[in-house]
Amino acid sequence: MNNLDALAKLIRYYCLVMTTEAGSGHPTSSLSATDLMTGLLFGGTFRSDLDNPLHPNNDRLIFSKGHASPLFYALWAAAGKVTEKDLMGYRKIGSPLEGHPTRVFKYTEAATGSLGQGLSIGLGMALNAKYLDKMPYRTYVLLGDSEMAEGSQWEALEIAAYYKLDNLVGIIDVNRLGQRGETMYGHDLSVYEKRVTAFGWEPIVIDGHQMPQILSAFEQAAKVKGRPVMLIARTLKGKGVSFIEDKNGWHGKPLKKDELAKALEELGPVDKSQRGQITMPEQIKPAAQLRGKASPVAYDATKSVSTRHAYGTALERIFPQYPDIVVLDAEVSNSTFSEIFKAKYPERFFEMYIAEQNMVGTALGLSIRGKTPFVSTFAAFLTRAFDQIRMSQYSLGNIKYCGSHAGVSIGEDGSSQMGLEDLAMFRTLPYSVVFYPSDAVSTEKLVEELAKHKGIAYLRTTRKDTPIIYRNDEYFTIGGSKTLKSNKADVATIVAAGITVHEALAAYEELKNEGMYIRLIDLYSVKPVDRKTIIQAARDTGAIITVEDHYADGGLGEAVLSVIAGIEVTFRQLAVRTIPRSGKPDELLDLAGISRRAILQTVKDLVRKRKKSGKETK
Amino acid sequence: MNNLDALAKLIRYYCLVMTTEAGSGHPTSSLSATDLMTGLLFGGTFRSDLDNPLHPNNDRLIFSKGHASPLFYALWAAAGKVTEKDLMGYRKIGSPLEGHPTRVFKYTEAATGSLGQGLSIGLGMALNAKYLDKMPYRTYVLLGDSEMAEGSQWEALEIAAYYKLDNLVGIIDVNRLGQRGETMYGHDLSVYEKRVTAFGWEPIVIDGHQMPQILSAFEQAAKVKGRPVMLIARTLKGKGVSFIEDKNGWHGKPLKKDELAKALEELGPVDKSQRGQITMPEQIKPAAQLRGKASPVAYDATKSVSTRHAYGTALERIFPQYPDIVVLDAEVSNSTFSEIFKAKYPERFFEMYIAEQNMVGTALGLSIRGKTPFVSTFAAFLTRAFDQIRMSQYSLGNIKYCGSHAGVSIGEDGSSQMGLEDLAMFRTLPYSVVFYPSDAVSTEKLVEELAKHKGIAYLRTTRKDTPIIYRNDEYFTIGGSKTLKSNKADVATIVAAGITVHEALAAYEELKNEGMYIRLIDLYSVKPVDRKTIIQAARDTGAIITVEDHYADGGLGEAVLSVIAGIEVTFRQLAVRTIPRSGKPDELLDLAGISRRAILQTVKDLVRKRKKSGKETK
Repeated sequence: MNNLDALAKLIRYYCLVMTTEAGSGHPTSSLSATDLMTGLLFGGTFRSDLDNPLHPNNDRLIFSKGHASPLFYALWAAAGKVTEKDLMGYRKIGSPLEGHPTRVFKYTEAATGSLGQGLSIGLGMALNAKYLDKMPYRTYVLLGDSEMAEGSQWEALEIAAYYKLDNLVGIIDVNRLGQRGETMYGHDLSVYEKRVTAFGWEPIVIDGHQMPQILSAFEQAAKVKGRPVMLIARTLKGKGVSFIEDKNGWHGKPLKKDELAKALEELGPVDKSQRGQITMPEQIKPAAQLRGKASPVAYDATKSVSTRHAYGTALERIFPQYPDIVVLDAEVSNSTFSEIFKAKYPERFFEMYIAEQNMVGTALGLSIRGKTPFVSTFAAFLTRAFDQIRMSQYSLGNIKYCGSHAGVSIGEDGSSQMGLEDLAMFRTLPYSVVFYPSDAVSTEKLVEELAKHKGIAYLRTTRKDTPIIYRNDEYFTIGGSKTLKSNKADVATIVAAGITVHEALAAYEELKNEGMYIRLIDLYSVKPVDRKTIIQAARDTGAIITVEDHYADGGLGEAVLSVIAGIEVTFRQLAVRTIPRSGKPDELLDLAGISRRAILQTVKDLVRKRKKSGKETK
Repeated sequence: MNNLDALAKLIRYYCLVMTTEAGSGHPTSSLSATDLMTGLLFGGTFRSDLDNPLHPNNDRLIFSKGHASPLFYALWAAAGKVTEKDLMGYRKIGSPLEGHPTRVFKYTEAATGSLGQGLSIGLGMALNAKYLDKMPYRTYVLLGDSEMAEGSQWEALEIAAYYKLDNLVGIIDVNRLGQRGETMYGHDLSVYEKRVTAFGWEPIVIDGHQMPQILSAFEQAAKVKGRPVMLIARTLKGKGVSFIEDKNGWHGKPLKKDELAKALEELGPVDKSQRGQITMPEQIKPAAQLRGKASPVAYDATKSVSTRHAYGTALERIFPQYPDIVVLDAEVSNSTFSEIFKAKYPERFFEMYIAEQNMVGTALGLSIRGKTPFVSTFAAFLTRAFDQIRMSQYSLGNIKYCGSHAGVSIGEDGSSQMGLEDLAMFRTLPYSVVFYPSDAVSTEKLVEELAKHKGIAYLRTTRKDTPIIYRNDEYFTIGGSKTLKSNKADVATIVAAGITVHEALAAYEELKNEGMYIRLIDLYSVKPVDRKTIIQAARDTGAIITVEDHYADGGLGEAVLSVIAGIEVTFRQLAVRTIPRSGKPDELLDLAGISRRAILQTVKDLVRKRKKSGKETK
């Protein structure tokens, strides 16, 4: 049996000294949750093989209130897996103990620090346990009271209840104080209780500093069936040190050296030999996945098929070969066509309703538990989850995002439904892959590339049917491109992707009829970008014209610019530069200046200017 | 007295014919809410001067479920302000009746179509009425049941209750069916009732097709004091046409011509001469704002002051001259320093708690009602509201976003807190202004520029104190830049902004000591960008080196590239290219390769290569 009081004291000691040593950090937000977490980890309910943090049977623990990282690290120190010396490296360069938990530290299940995200991630892990791996592990998420203001929390609450995740336990550390003052509800726990209950969770209200209550709450939580459980714990920020306890103005402030001395004196002698024991988990293996083979791509070259449709078909086609795939959609599976996968593999498809933030958090949880989530909605609505997408990279997520209905070419629905910022959004992530295929064959091939790839990637699809461009045996790759037209007499190079490839093809034919040739590159891999081909084209043709159904900043045009920077070449960027409206797809492409007509005119203008300036076309 | 049944029938007729004519649109989602909206507008409660849509006393009506736009337009047709011919232009190019409501149509209060945003916008309008203009208008928001899954709704609910907005009325059109099937709760209205109640609203549950219930609900709603009211209405999707009523598979589908004929037959004769009367509003003017003069900027050039601090000081300083300013913050006002404004003008400051999506929606509502909202949080956390930010431009919002704690230079808190995508995010918006000042003086001046400017703008601030660079009487402008160092012998140009200006200044001094000169441009206006100065510098020095504390894609480097595209000039982009971590600010700038040392090395490498290749430095 662990001496929980002694352990809690030791953990408080660690929280205080490590933050003072670091000169920054959040000791008071750690102290409020110390008893709760000591009770959870060392009270007998939590099961983990500490020598094997990736063990599939381990209970999962996520600190959604990531700023309580001193407590998080101190817990593993109290468990004997982190030394006091390690703790003294907190927040210093080279230490795995970063300011907010990241996966550089081996016991971190998910990187947190942007509030209101941990519960969704836990939901993904719990979903995996209950419906996919069918494992007995439980997932615990420590939540701050301030962060309950985030809408994403309520998305997670509603979806966890919908999926009856009785293996998910949230713990709200109601310490009353946010960063700059009191929360909306202070210590009125009934507000949380009513809301959580209304959202279908089982609430357990306790005093978060009374160990017997804490222990019995966790025991009780483990027994609830059919719904997730929320512990709502009344706590005091800075608990254990009288001059900071329950006092405003102490958020994110370490004690000064003299204050620390005073605090430690108050804390009294600490038994550093204490080491908490954690219950070992069961040894159940997830069922082995049968791995088959994807059937070949087989499109009739005379038919038109939308790339969004090919996305759904591809997922269904390749699943046997990539059985880690799971598919999530935000209530638009009949638009993104993820419904094609759902129809065949309903047990691998999760309806996430119109709650994109939670969808991304859930995908991250699934990804951390070894799945390969494909997440789809309209490209425009992925912007809803930019913060979660950004954070998913810090958790080393392996997630494939698919945004449909890209650009003005969707037509009549108008600006609100048009994804025009998505390429820029996904390009910002340092290690991302960004694909924008132009036909069904390339979409199919690229979806398979994404299934093989580990990391964050984005696939942009188009609403309307487009002709098949490629042979079924064509090869596509991360960082690749296709030169669709090339001739010695090329007067310029068009770099297009997705819908604009078809516009460029049409422009090519018209120009050819007038005896003028252009090179045409299908830049389906917007990131990484095929430097070699673009630079060669710039040298060969002396002019690069990019055409994209995306706003001008941060998209395909700038991706190309980053490659040809400094090279003397005529450059034109055709992109959406004004706010679009409703109309027919072709009318809108024209209005935006990214249609075949716009390409034609740009090429002709360029040739005219060249002739005028005396430079011959090559 | 209006004949409400006849009007509802006429409106149903319009919804059906206009969508069939358009060949797209959402008739069934319109029919479910037809009785509710007919009752609201023509039942006597709603007050509006239709000849004066901007009248400050008009009740406001927002269709959060923007896809019910046929109903929205049909209402104004029934009121005699839109002709049937206008309706036949629905979704066609040139018509103000776009697929989802935009402000091109004069009765649209806010553009919608991305779900879960209307309630926040309404909240902003109601906040304005109750606390700022002190006007008796009420704000009504029509909500879909599917969109209640969005977390942003619950943010709006909690904040509206917190501010006791008894002038705000939501109407949930519970038609049971989402886009691809049933919602999570179908026709179980008790779920909505419990949740809404738990969030502090007064629920009124009704049958949404029974006019007497509808009328009495709106009357009752207008009398509730101290809290907002939510009508929860049981409705049938496609109500009024038997073969589509309450049937799945009819979302977003207009009737075919023969189906329409059948539907109209069922509807029976329609009296097109019917015109609904709407009650005229009161004639109360908002109190006139006293306009004073901002005090001058007065920094001691020897002190270091963070730009985030200058942001707060600037708001407080300029308010007398720009009394339309209101300030919103997401519970971090002591970090963004908007608290400086709050301390002086508490009645113009609204605490929005950690709920960024609702904060942006609220700001939009305030902006539409004539205020100039300054909205601040950490730059990283503005990504949470990208969808709302994107939509705010479609509502012609006048909002100034401020993101603090930009870049790796924040130090120990680590990656989750670092804004590294924000410049790219705000650059995507076609008409945005993006500022990134390097010192307190330029920040003050730029905040004032933002107060004058109409539209969406972004100001990026830095956590740490930085030296004052500029004189208090220096002039800064949208699209401007400052050439801090310039010399005939310049071997290269450094284009920096914010924190990297200081790194570049340090590099300049070191290089000067070695007898080497560089030009240094402070590109405080990242968008629009000062083309002339950059191109001149490229020509003069033959080399452009951009340095930014931001990820490589979509930020300052690419903004500069878009200007020098095609010019023969050596180009280097120093930016954050790997995922950062915790450490001291200087260590992290170094690690990211954007420090003084990195600049120094880049310049020297460049000069070495030039010499090697035989080209002389200019």
